[in-house]
Amino acid sequence: MEKRIGSSIRLPHPPSIRSFASIVGQKEGDGPLGHCFDRIELRDDFGEKTWEKAESRLQCETLQLALRKSGFDAAVLDCVLAGDLINQCTSSSFALREFGIPFLGLYGACSTMAEGLLTGSLLVEGGFCKRAAAVTSSHFSTAERQFRFPLSYGGQRTPTSQWTCTASGALVLTESGGPPYVRGVCIGRIQDLGITDANNMGAAMAPAAADTIARYLSDTGTQPSDYDAIVTGDLGNIGTKLVRMLLQQEGIDIAPQHQDCGAMMFDADAQDTHAGGSGCGCAGSILCGHFLPQVQQGSIRRMLFAATGALLSPMIVQQGESIPGISHLVDISFAKEDGTC
Amino acid sequence: MEKRIGSSIRLPHPPSIRSFASIVGQKEGDGPLGHCFDRIELRDDFGEKTWEKAESRLQCETLQLALRKSGFDAAVLDCVLAGDLINQCTSSSFALREFGIPFLGLYGACSTMAEGLLTGSLLVEGGFCKRAAAVTSSHFSTAERQFRFPLSYGGQRTPTSQWTCTASGALVLTESGGPPYVRGVCIGRIQDLGITDANNMGAAMAPAAADTIARYLSDTGTQPSDYDAIVTGDLGNIGTKLVRMLLQQEGIDIAPQHQDCGAMMFDADAQDTHAGGSGCGCAGSILCGHFLPQVQQGSIRRMLFAATGALLSPMIVQQGESIPGISHLVDISFAKEDGTC
Repeated sequence: MEKRIGSSIRLPHPPSIRSFASIVGQKEGDGPLGHCFDRIELRDDFGEKTWEKAESRLQCETLQLALRKSGFDAAVLDCVLAGDLINQCTSSSFALREFGIPFLGLYGACSTMAEGLLTGSLLVEGGFCKRAAAVTSSHFSTAERQFRFPLSYGGQRTPTSQWTCTASGALVLTESGGPPYVRGVCIGRIQDLGITDANNMGAAMAPAAADTIARYLSDTGTQPSDYDAIVTGDLGNIGTKLVRMLLQQEGIDIAPQHQDCGAMMFDADAQDTHAGGSGCGCAGSILCGHFLPQVQQGSIRRMLFAATGALLSPMIVQQGESIPGISHLVDISFAKEDGTC
Repeated sequence: MEKRIGSSIRLPHPPSIRSFASIVGQKEGDGPLGHCFDRIELRDDFGEKTWEKAESRLQCETLQLALRKSGFDAAVLDCVLAGDLINQCTSSSFALREFGIPFLGLYGACSTMAEGLLTGSLLVEGGFCKRAAAVTSSHFSTAERQFRFPLSYGGQRTPTSQWTCTASGALVLTESGGPPYVRGVCIGRIQDLGITDANNMGAAMAPAAADTIARYLSDTGTQPSDYDAIVTGDLGNIGTKLVRMLLQQEGIDIAPQHQDCGAMMFDADAQDTHAGGSGCGCAGSILCGHFLPQVQQGSIRRMLFAATGALLSPMIVQQGESIPGISHLVDISFAKEDGTC
């Protein structure tokens, strides 16, 4: 069977997502999805002296938990794929240096969970790795320092701004096993429609999600109704409206199946999070805490996971550049095959 | 044939490196390898208003040149893998947003050329991509601003410091074609022996190169003498001595075959570059400008390319952390097969 279909890829031997884990901070635990995460950590600093070390600790412990659930020792993993938002992806490299697992560093901003799951699935399906892990994280306080203002400055947030989640998701992939399975993937293309407001990332990322979802549906000859859920992350409340509108213009109505991780994480009014959640850990933890258990049990038969990333840096925004967006897609299914893809 | 051998991977259907290109700045062009690069650009700013935009332009034009040599239009590429040193890898995402090619962002610091070539080769060998590209870049002025001091500050450089190259390398991989071929790869493991001096990156990266090279030789049952060249990049003059010493302690003598891109780029005395060159573009441009043409012609029959990266950020170094290193390895050959791997 040909693996390439158009610009998408199908996996004749779908890798199994053997285990998954999620850890979040207190604010995320107080949100509507609080019940679904493996652990809610009440100490923002995770017992460390700096925010950056706290995020590394969060990512490290989430991967440890996913490994524990898989029953594997780190030593039998052939590869771990990871990335984060912080400069030079140090949350990941410092989190993972203790494990001794061959490591591929990724940068996909908030799309990293999808990029890691996508790339890891291809490495397993291709016979290059028997077992691989993907992990990502974000932390409110590291991201604020990195991209916006020092926390103690107390800057006002604009209505379109999103709240970076303190959260991490990790999963372990194997060649064979039970559901969930990865049936197909679509690598994102950079889309940039000229948004220059770093406080409106939903608008910057929505065109990328629309492009990737439209390509995958077209390549596979499937309709939104073939999926129980079409999940983006993390467009937030504003980007959610935009991605539906952009796809509507192409005659694709995803509204009945569509859910966005950024819009799901918080109760925007009660929690004062404006346009919703964001950060690599937002889509990562919601995939691993909320969606994958449902696919495993079969209550979601098939879903598209299209995490989105805004590929900006503060410096390039200050230089007047617009914000490129990207969205990678993974087709996750309860059944190993059903003839539709 | 089993693709996994130990912690290494062999490629039964070796992808072909169809084309490769390199562009460097004036200082690199003035060095001992100046004759081998496709283009020496005399304007440090590449005609752009900021150093960051200059680096994006450099990377963009190097990929364009590799594409032109391949005879392919960007539209037929299934994937491009890229990364760089600058915050949030914006040199890559801004360089590539015009191409419309599905994009996987990587972060491997100065090991990025090897990480991109490695991952791209697996995607092609696995049948997931028919054609893929890998590209990376670095720029002296963006890196100084990012990691050290503003240029106008005129900070003194320590004897162990390396000079970030203004350079870029790009290549195009295809399923079939002529040499060079990618015969095997080894994904790096993070190594951290406690170096905390951000001006001594050669020492921080040498253990990672030693670990990866030793694993690959052991997994494949090969000796240093089975290769015409064992190339690290970019350990510089200090890291070069260390990697040989570390391998010597394991009974492996790579000295007769070993060359290091960081030590090759400049005439250290005449060009005042202290411990040598560094930056993603150092190993990237020397692979594409100096080594791949020799493998294509058969004057190098087989080589190991083990680019090295220091996974540091200024912030985490200021917090007193040591510097994790990584090295990814690619086994590049004139012959498609010869029974040794």
